[in-house]
Amino acid sequence: MREAFHEQLDSVFDDLAGICRSVESAVRLATEALLTGDAEVAERVISADVEIDRARESVEEKAFQLLSLQQPVAGDLRTVVSALRMVSELERMGDLSVHVAKIARLRVPNVAVPLEVQPTMTKMATVAEDMVSRVSQIITGRDVAAAIELGRDDEVMDQLRRASFVELLSDDWDHGVEAAVDIALLGRYYERIADHAVSVANRVVFVVTGQDPRTVGA
Amino acid sequence: MREAFHEQLDSVFDDLAGICRSVESAVRLATEALLTGDAEVAERVISADVEIDRARESVEEKAFQLLSLQQPVAGDLRTVVSALRMVSELERMGDLSVHVAKIARLRVPNVAVPLEVQPTMTKMATVAEDMVSRVSQIITGRDVAAAIELGRDDEVMDQLRRASFVELLSDDWDHGVEAAVDIALLGRYYERIADHAVSVANRVVFVVTGQDPRTVGA
Repeated sequence: MREAFHEQLDSVFDDLAGICRSVESAVRLATEALLTGDAEVAERVISADVEIDRARESVEEKAFQLLSLQQPVAGDLRTVVSALRMVSELERMGDLSVHVAKIARLRVPNVAVPLEVQPTMTKMATVAEDMVSRVSQIITGRDVAAAIELGRDDEVMDQLRRASFVELLSDDWDHGVEAAVDIALLGRYYERIADHAVSVANRVVFVVTGQDPRTVGA
Repeated sequence: MREAFHEQLDSVFDDLAGICRSVESAVRLATEALLTGDAEVAERVISADVEIDRARESVEEKAFQLLSLQQPVAGDLRTVVSALRMVSELERMGDLSVHVAKIARLRVPNVAVPLEVQPTMTKMATVAEDMVSRVSQIITGRDVAAAIELGRDDEVMDQLRRASFVELLSDDWDHGVEAAVDIALLGRYYERIADHAVSVANRVVFVVTGQDPRTVGA
């Protein structure tokens, strides 16, 4: 019985890692659409999101089956509930990628991000994509050290977001209000993707160690 | 045993309604700080958020106790898991109120929202606060009809957000980039508060009827 439980739990975590890889692809393609103004790539991100939604439903169903049929307690119970939370956050990261793709699509045939802000925006996108990529490995390997390391990268994203505000609020800004608003919202979306990545990684730490890294000061 | 379970579940839902009232207060005060530039009111919202976080932890603990000790199945299990999700969303609504308060605080002694955008922004804030207020009643009364009604109000928020974009992207806009960016982000925060309110209300429908109103086309 317990062995079957842990096999099914492993299968849920495999699914979570798979969803995380789909999110990684969504972030990468949304950024490509954003920086090239490619409507077709933006559409791919938007239409692929339904698959992430479906995968979430499937994980939720499996988790409920585990809770109903196996009646886990203590650590096992908390692990299943953590999986339910992780899948919600991963789905949300997919939605945020769709928001990025929609801003890209809205500005076609132009590119939403003016040339001089592209270095900062590209860094934000790269940090977000890299964090999502590492989260799928963290889930697969239940890698506590990598998860705690990821939490520290959140600060890099905060710095980049501040840098983008400095750029768009400078006296030299001559791209108008629309581009500034786009960049502020895009920054918010990438920042939220990074926040969720850290949160998912923290849940892996909790699943493995029973402790939340945010409350033990790691 | 089943009676004890349902009493404890009622107590969890009472706690959820209480957290929702705290969120309502946070939304109201954050808006007051925003429209008056009152730093002291903004600080109150920011420092009160820790109480919402603590209340969330308490509900999570109670829900885990229920799952561990009572081992609910079927509908009861889904209700407890729904409660866990509702409390996450309520806490998030509190965080979003803090974001509004922080923009207010950042612009003190000025007011972040230019006079001509205040009508639209006030409407967004009023709609958000009203939705949160109704959600606490929906939780208390397990009021399915009111919950379904609430879902329809989300459209009002979308219209207001579009109206605010029309204002800040118009040729007449002469408040600069900073105010435009503030308004775009504030609109995003109020919209997210409304989204979460609808989601919490939908979970009440699910708890009472076993069906998610989004999937049955209500």
